[in-house]
Amino acid sequence: MASETSSTPSSSRASAEPSSSSYTAIRDPGRILQFDPFQSLVDEGFWHRLSSLKLDSLGLDQSPISLTGFYAPCSHSEVSNRLTLLAESLPPDPKQLESPLERVHGNRNRCPVPGTLYNMNTLESFKALDRVSLLKMEAQKVEEDSAVLLRFLVISFADLKKWNFLHWFAFPAVVLDPPAMILNIQSAKDALNQDEGQSLSAVMNEWRNSSLTTDVPFFLIIISSSHATVRHLKDWEACQHDGQKLLFGFYDPSCRATNPGWPLRNYLAFISLRYNIGKIQFFCYREKHGFADLGLSLVGEAAVSPPQDWREPQNIPKAVGWQPKPKNIRLAESMDPERLAVSAADLNLKLMRWRTLPSLDLNILSNVKCLLLGAGTLGCQVARMLMAWGVRKMTLVDSGKVAMSNPVRQSLYTFDDCLNGGSFKAVAAASSLKQIFPAMEAEGIQLSIPMPGHPILANEVDRVHEDCKQLWNLISSHDVTFLLTDTRESRWLPTLLCASENKVAITAALGFDSYLVMRHGSGPLITVSDQTDSPSTLDDGVQRLGCYFCSDVVAPIDSTSNRTLDQQCTVTRPGLAPIASALAVELLVGLLHHPNGIHAPGEIANSIMSSSKEPLGILPHQIRGSLPQYSQLTLLGHSSNSCTACSSTVVLEFKRRGIEFVLQAINHPTYLEDLTGLTELMESAKSFNLDWDKETSDDDDADL
Amino acid sequence: MASETSSTPSSSRASAEPSSSSYTAIRDPGRILQFDPFQSLVDEGFWHRLSSLKLDSLGLDQSPISLTGFYAPCSHSEVSNRLTLLAESLPPDPKQLESPLERVHGNRNRCPVPGTLYNMNTLESFKALDRVSLLKMEAQKVEEDSAVLLRFLVISFADLKKWNFLHWFAFPAVVLDPPAMILNIQSAKDALNQDEGQSLSAVMNEWRNSSLTTDVPFFLIIISSSHATVRHLKDWEACQHDGQKLLFGFYDPSCRATNPGWPLRNYLAFISLRYNIGKIQFFCYREKHGFADLGLSLVGEAAVSPPQDWREPQNIPKAVGWQPKPKNIRLAESMDPERLAVSAADLNLKLMRWRTLPSLDLNILSNVKCLLLGAGTLGCQVARMLMAWGVRKMTLVDSGKVAMSNPVRQSLYTFDDCLNGGSFKAVAAASSLKQIFPAMEAEGIQLSIPMPGHPILANEVDRVHEDCKQLWNLISSHDVTFLLTDTRESRWLPTLLCASENKVAITAALGFDSYLVMRHGSGPLITVSDQTDSPSTLDDGVQRLGCYFCSDVVAPIDSTSNRTLDQQCTVTRPGLAPIASALAVELLVGLLHHPNGIHAPGEIANSIMSSSKEPLGILPHQIRGSLPQYSQLTLLGHSSNSCTACSSTVVLEFKRRGIEFVLQAINHPTYLEDLTGLTELMESAKSFNLDWDKETSDDDDADL
Repeated sequence: MASETSSTPSSSRASAEPSSSSYTAIRDPGRILQFDPFQSLVDEGFWHRLSSLKLDSLGLDQSPISLTGFYAPCSHSEVSNRLTLLAESLPPDPKQLESPLERVHGNRNRCPVPGTLYNMNTLESFKALDRVSLLKMEAQKVEEDSAVLLRFLVISFADLKKWNFLHWFAFPAVVLDPPAMILNIQSAKDALNQDEGQSLSAVMNEWRNSSLTTDVPFFLIIISSSHATVRHLKDWEACQHDGQKLLFGFYDPSCRATNPGWPLRNYLAFISLRYNIGKIQFFCYREKHGFADLGLSLVGEAAVSPPQDWREPQNIPKAVGWQPKPKNIRLAESMDPERLAVSAADLNLKLMRWRTLPSLDLNILSNVKCLLLGAGTLGCQVARMLMAWGVRKMTLVDSGKVAMSNPVRQSLYTFDDCLNGGSFKAVAAASSLKQIFPAMEAEGIQLSIPMPGHPILANEVDRVHEDCKQLWNLISSHDVTFLLTDTRESRWLPTLLCASENKVAITAALGFDSYLVMRHGSGPLITVSDQTDSPSTLDDGVQRLGCYFCSDVVAPIDSTSNRTLDQQCTVTRPGLAPIASALAVELLVGLLHHPNGIHAPGEIANSIMSSSKEPLGILPHQIRGSLPQYSQLTLLGHSSNSCTACSSTVVLEFKRRGIEFVLQAINHPTYLEDLTGLTELMESAKSFNLDWDKETSDDDDADL
Repeated sequence: MASETSSTPSSSRASAEPSSSSYTAIRDPGRILQFDPFQSLVDEGFWHRLSSLKLDSLGLDQSPISLTGFYAPCSHSEVSNRLTLLAESLPPDPKQLESPLERVHGNRNRCPVPGTLYNMNTLESFKALDRVSLLKMEAQKVEEDSAVLLRFLVISFADLKKWNFLHWFAFPAVVLDPPAMILNIQSAKDALNQDEGQSLSAVMNEWRNSSLTTDVPFFLIIISSSHATVRHLKDWEACQHDGQKLLFGFYDPSCRATNPGWPLRNYLAFISLRYNIGKIQFFCYREKHGFADLGLSLVGEAAVSPPQDWREPQNIPKAVGWQPKPKNIRLAESMDPERLAVSAADLNLKLMRWRTLPSLDLNILSNVKCLLLGAGTLGCQVARMLMAWGVRKMTLVDSGKVAMSNPVRQSLYTFDDCLNGGSFKAVAAASSLKQIFPAMEAEGIQLSIPMPGHPILANEVDRVHEDCKQLWNLISSHDVTFLLTDTRESRWLPTLLCASENKVAITAALGFDSYLVMRHGSGPLITVSDQTDSPSTLDDGVQRLGCYFCSDVVAPIDSTSNRTLDQQCTVTRPGLAPIASALAVELLVGLLHHPNGIHAPGEIANSIMSSSKEPLGILPHQIRGSLPQYSQLTLLGHSSNSCTACSSTVVLEFKRRGIEFVLQAINHPTYLEDLTGLTELMESAKSFNLDWDKETSDDDDADL
C-alpha cells in the first residue's frame, strides 16, 4: 500500500514557467526545456512510524522534521521511478528529529534524498501553511549546499483518530529566468558511437556496483577517444581538457524519451551558477534489469542563462516544485482491524501522556499482570477500567455462573450469557473482554476461594487443597491482586497469600450506600528497612500499611450460610460499584507509578495543598465514600501485629506449614484468633470494659 | 405447570395409625378405615404472586400468611381431585396478609379451603420448622371451628434468586384413637335402591347448581320413603326423625372405590364429638361431567370412638397430615427467559427497597423517560446506570459512529461495532442495551445538536432547522434530559430547551482529572411561587438553581474546529467517566424521589449532620470531584439573569421566535451576549478592571 502522486507527465502547475501541452521535440533548439516532474510514493510503514513519533514523542510540537527519501534511476521504459518514503525515512532517534540528518547510506535502489516534513496538528494549520515561503526556504538550501542538489518537502496533517494522512509533496527547484532552452536531446545510444556507448555502459555499471558510488546520483562523464570515464562532480576542475567531451550525468528517475527528470533542473542551475557554463551537455542515466540502458538513457544539451542577481548574497531564489494537489491516505480502510484497534485503544492513553502526564508509563501498564478475584459487579467494572488504562494481561477468578439478575449490573455480561443455566462468569468475562478489544490477554478461571468458617467436609479436603494451591500459584504469577468478592471471609486467604508473596493487593468493598477502596501494605517479612514487627508507633518511618483485616478483632467467619435473600444478593446502590472500581484502578495506576511501589506511604488528601507533587496526585491508603452525603475521604491505617491475615505471626506460620495451616484456619476460625493473640486481647479488653462493638462497627460498610 | 404431590394412594406416612399395604375390603367390619390422602397442585401463578409479595411487601417478615386453596368433588373414575393453589389463593391486599380471610366465594369447581403459609427466609429456617407443632396448631383450628372441617398448611422457602420454590404441604387431621373402623363401604348405586338413587342424584345436582350451596362441601342427606333431601350440616338437630336414613355427605376429592377421601377424617371426628354418634353413615359425593355419579360415589358406615379427653378444654389433639416429603419447583427451567430476566433485574432493586429504602418507588423509575444526549463514554455509562436502577425507557442521541478507540472506554460497544466503518453510536448503544436486558425500551437517534459558534451554511439551514425541531420534540416528550456531550457549546440548545419546557436536565462533564455533575434548576417561566427574575439574593426562598451556563460570562462558541488531536479526543483519566455517570444517575434518582422534584433546593454535604432526612441522602445541586486529591465536594449556585441559556430573557425570546431565534444565536454568538446584557456587563467589568479570566477559569474542568 502506498500513495502515489499524479502520474501525468506535465510540468508542475505550481511552476512559474508557461505551461505547455506538447513536449519539446528532439533537436528543436528554440523550445523551452521541460522536466518530467518527480513523483512520490509513501509506504504505509512511514505513516505508522510517524503516528508513533507523534503520540510518543512529538506531542503538539510542530517543528519541522528531517527526513530521508529514497530514489533510484528509472529502470523501466514506461514507468518513472518515484521518490519513496519508508519507515526508515524518519530519524531513528526521536531526540534528533530536527537536527540535520547525517549522510544516510543507501544502496543502488535507495539513493538518499534529504527532505523536511512539516506535520501540522490541525487541518486548519495545514491549510494555512505558506507554501511559497516554505518552498523558497528549501530552494535556498539547494543553493547553499551544492552537495545536495535534490531535496524535497512534505507538509502533512495526520489525523490519528481516523488514520487519515493528508499530505502534500514539493520537490523544490529554483526558477531559471530566462528558462533553459533545449538545444538537442536524444537517446544516448544514438548520441554516442558504439565504442563510446559500450565504454560508458561499462563505467556506469562499475559506478553503480561500487558501494562507494552507487547512491551518488550526480557525477561527470568524460569521453575521450571513445573511452568513457565517470568522475565525482567535485572533480570538474580537473577534467577541463581539450578534445574530450564532458557530460553532466545524473540518475534520472524519468522514463520519458523526450524529457529529462526533475533532478536536472537544479543541476542545470547549479552548473550554470558554479561553472558559468552557458551550454550544458547532460546525461540522463537510466537502467534496465540493473544495468545501464543507453537506449533509455538520454544525452542532451541545454542553454542556460543565469540571472545576474543570483550571485548577490541576499538573493532568495524563486522556486517551484509543489505537486498539483495534496493526497489523502485513509489507512484505516486497508489496515488489519485488530491492529487498528490496538493503535486506537492506545490513542487516548498516549494523548493523555502527551497532554498532561509525560511521566505516564504505558509499558508498565501494558505489562502488569492483574488477578481479579471475583467477576461480579466489581470484577467486571475493574476489568473494564484496567482495559481503559491500557492493562492487557488479566486473569479473572470466579466460581459462579451468570444469573439472570447479573447483566443489568455486571458490565461484561449480556442476556445470552444467562441462558441454558448460565455461562461460568470468569470464562464469560474473559471472552467479553476479548470481544471488546481483541488484543486483551484475558483468562477466566473457575475456582472457589477457600474461606475460614466454611468447614471442609472429609471428601472435600483434596479439592480445597487444590484450590488453595491454585490460588497461591495465581497470586505468585501475577503482579497485582484485586479483592472483589462479596464476602469478608473470601478475602482472607488472598490477603494472606499477597502478604506472604509481598504482592500488591487492592480491595474494593461495598456497603448499601458506601464504599471502601484500599491497597494493602507490603508483606511483613520484606520491608524497606529492617523487619521488627514490634508494636507500631505512629512515628515509625518503616511501618507497613494495614490490610483489609488489620482493624478487625475477630477472625473472619462464615457470613453466607443461612443468609436471607437480601444477604445472598449484594444489595447496593447501583452507583457504588462503578465508583469503587474506578477508584481501585486509579489507585493501582498511582501505585505503579510511585517510585516506592508497594512500600509507598499512605497519603491523605489535603485541601490546603492545591496539588500533589505527583502528576497523578496523591497515593492514599484507603478511600471511603458515602453516596447519601456525596462525600469521599482518604484514610490511613497501619498494619496490626495481631492481624489474622498479614501479621508476621500468621505469615511465618503459613510459610512454615503451607496449605495445612490454611486448612486449619478454615476449619477452626478461633485458631487464628488464638495464634495472633486476638483472643487474649479480647479477654483483656473485656476486663477493661472497652466498647469493642463501637470500634468494629466502623467496618460495617465493608461487607454485608 | 403445577406441582403434584405423590399420587400413591397410601395413608399419610406421618399418620400415627398403623400402615397397611392392603385396603379395607367392602363389608369387612373388622378393618381400620383408611383415607385416600389429599393431593396438592400449585399453579405457577401462585409462586409469581408470592414472589411479588415477598419482594414488594413482606421483606424479611416470616409471619404466617392466610391462604385459600380450592378443591372440588372427584369427577373422574381414575383421577382424584387435588387441592389447588392459584395466584388468587394469596390475599389481594398485602396489608391483610395475616388477618383471617373473609369467606371466599368459590364456584362449583373451586370450593375454598382455608390454609396457612409459613414462607421462610432461608433453607435452614425452613428445615428447622417444628412441623409437629404447626400441625397441632392447625388441627386445633379444625376442632375450634366446626364450620371449617378441612384446612391445609404449607411451609416453603422461596429462593427468588434462582426461582426455586421448596414447599411442603400438610392437610391436618386429628388422630382418631382408637382408629375408626369400617363397617361397610360400597358404591352409592349399590347401597341405594333405584328411586333413592334417582332422588339423591336430583337433589345433589340441585345443591351443586345453586350458587348458595355449590361450594359447601359438607352437608346432610336425609332419605325418607325413597325420597332424598339435602340439608346444611347445622340442620342436624332438625333432621332427627325415626324411619329416615341420615347420611353425612361431603365432596369427596378421592376417586378410590374402596377408600373415602381425606376430608372425611376430620368430619368423622367432628360428628363423633359434636353429635356423640358411634356408628356414622357417610356419603362420599363424586361427579361425572358435572353431574352426580352414584356409581363413583360411595356410601359407607364407620364406627368411631372418641377418646374421653377430647372434651377437656386444654386438650390439644394429636394430628397427622404432612405429605410424605417436600417438593422443589424449579420455575426458572420453564419460565420464558426474557420474563425471568425482567424479574431478576428487578430483584436487586426490590431487595434494596426491602432492606433499606421502603420509600424507593420503582414505578417512578420504570416509567421515567430519559433522553441521553451523547452516546460516548458518559452516555454509555449513564445508560448502564439507569438500567441498573430499573429505568426502562431511554432514548440515546449521537451523530457519530463507533470508532476503534471507543470500545475500551465506551461500555456499550464491542470491536464488531467498529468494523466496516463503524455502526452509528446511538443505534449500536440502544441495541446493546437490549442485548443486555431484552425488556429495555431503548431507542437510538442519529442527530447532530446545533451549536452556537458553528455557523450554518446556506445549504444547511433546512437540515439544522429540522435538527432543532427534532431535539425540541425529543426533550418535550421525555421527562429527563442528560447532557453528556463532549463540548460546551453542544449543551447550550438542550439547556435552553429544558429551561423552556421546564424539564429536568442533568449535566456530567469531565476535565482531565476532575468532574462536574449537576442538575439544572427549573425553567424561568414556571416557578413554585411568583416569577420575578429580579436580580437574585441569597435569601430569596424561591430562587432557581443555576444551569450549566449560569456562571459563564461569555456565550458558548465553537471549541471544536481547529482542535488538535488531544482536543478532538476527550482526554480524561479513565476513572472519571464511570464516577461522574454514577453520580449523575444517583442525583436523578434522588431528584425523582424528592417531593419538590425539579424545584428541590440544592443541599450541601454536611459532615456534622451524620445522616440526611431523606433515605437516599442529600440532593445537591452540583458535585465536583478531583481524582488527584480523591476528593468530592457539593456546591450550590443560583441561576443568573444574564445566563445565555436559561434566563427569562433568553427563554422568552425563544418562546416568541422559536427556531429562528436559535439559528440567529448559532450564527452570531455575540447576539446572545448582547441580548442577555453580558456584553454590557463585560464592558463595565473592564472599566472596574476586574480579573475575569480568573473567575472563568473555575470552569476549566467542565469541558476540554
